[in-house]
Amino acid sequence: MFLVKLGGSVITIKGRYRFYRPKAVHEIIKELKKKNEPFVVVHGGGSFGHIKAKEYGIPGEITERTKMGYSVVHRDMVDLNQRVMNSLIESGIRGVGIPPSMFNGDLQEISKSVGDHMDAGLFPVTFGDVYLNQKEKRFEIVSGDDLILELARKLKPSDVYFLTDVDGIYDRNPKKYRDAVLLRQLNDTAKFENIGTDVTGGMLKKASTVKDIAKLGCTVYVLNGNVPSRLNRTESKDFIGTVVK
Amino acid sequence: MFLVKLGGSVITIKGRYRFYRPKAVHEIIKELKKKNEPFVVVHGGGSFGHIKAKEYGIPGEITERTKMGYSVVHRDMVDLNQRVMNSLIESGIRGVGIPPSMFNGDLQEISKSVGDHMDAGLFPVTFGDVYLNQKEKRFEIVSGDDLILELARKLKPSDVYFLTDVDGIYDRNPKKYRDAVLLRQLNDTAKFENIGTDVTGGMLKKASTVKDIAKLGCTVYVLNGNVPSRLNRTESKDFIGTVVK
Repeated sequence: MFLVKLGGSVITIKGRYRFYRPKAVHEIIKELKKKNEPFVVVHGGGSFGHIKAKEYGIPGEITERTKMGYSVVHRDMVDLNQRVMNSLIESGIRGVGIPPSMFNGDLQEISKSVGDHMDAGLFPVTFGDVYLNQKEKRFEIVSGDDLILELARKLKPSDVYFLTDVDGIYDRNPKKYRDAVLLRQLNDTAKFENIGTDVTGGMLKKASTVKDIAKLGCTVYVLNGNVPSRLNRTESKDFIGTVVK
Repeated sequence: MFLVKLGGSVITIKGRYRFYRPKAVHEIIKELKKKNEPFVVVHGGGSFGHIKAKEYGIPGEITERTKMGYSVVHRDMVDLNQRVMNSLIESGIRGVGIPPSMFNGDLQEISKSVGDHMDAGLFPVTFGDVYLNQKEKRFEIVSGDDLILELARKLKPSDVYFLTDVDGIYDRNPKKYRDAVLLRQLNDTAKFENIGTDVTGGMLKKASTVKDIAKLGCTVYVLNGNVPSRLNRTESKDFIGTVVK
């Protein structure tokens, strides 16, 4: 089995509130299906999550404003998730959306539900979400990166694919520096430590997630979600992307 | 606080797959809001649930067919729930959808999540749903009636409103018998026992749910969801509906 992280900037247009990219997702699913293996999807929020979370002050204490924010952001994230579900079901894939808020953001409970649904032959799709922290009387956010790391721990996938809006991990942010260099192979921990945190154009919040997953023994691929054919060319000589193992 | 059961035949058109009735729901929410109290909504599936559940053989064992059915029916039920959420949020009500499948249909877990969200000042909306029964390797259905009974036990509401597509509980099915008589008050257990199970035109699967909730000490109103102004006329002399206590 394998895990896929669909970055918010691949499946939505980031600056435009609730703007989904159905064709991009459809093309990605076509490639995932070709692999003919069970998989789990984690998607980011993109313009369905970040804009309103910021506007309503989430994460933050429970107030009249954050209560409305929780309601709106969770509704919007489920909306995005449903669109991904539609794309999967249209492709004949038996997906099931797993909203982290229903487990109060508890990563172990979420991954248990994901595992149970996988065991039943379904394709779980979870996502960055807001959740209620009852103890501390706050609304919090669980990120796609937190989720995929926990899922890699629990499910021990052979491969993990991070789909971003650039070609992979660069030595510098490729959106800022025209001469940024794509790092095709990262198997030296020391070298990897030297890379900054903004090496995929902001797409991966923490490059450390990739490293942590690779340490679990998975092969991690960071690649461009806008060229999904690369998902099935990772063994080819002219593969464009970053392989971390 | 109070509970509201929105029957599937009020919020959808039953024979037409995924046909939502936004205006009907909007009018109901307007009346609920006037009560100026916290509330929890439970809605049925109507044409978002029953048609495909039957088509795919759910409830039933885990097979290729029921797996696809689980995926489709749950997606559709969340779709319906999202439409209700939209209607609530548009009315300024901080709703949050609680999908029973995420708790493997466990009524106590579902009502705990509903209670936690209520305590945080939100308006939980749960619904009839499919779920995975891992132990018995089956897909099952939890009904809105099961949910509202459990929620009444846990939350101890003063009032519970069942919105159906007829005026209340009749002595016989009013859709079959033109001379069926609307029973305006039911406070005699013995008398209530004599009523058949199909006394609201099929809208309440089990009239016993109403009875069981009334036994908990709640006042139960069974009324016509297509005339939502009645929600705020229960104290009036010319109130049309059935009061059970």
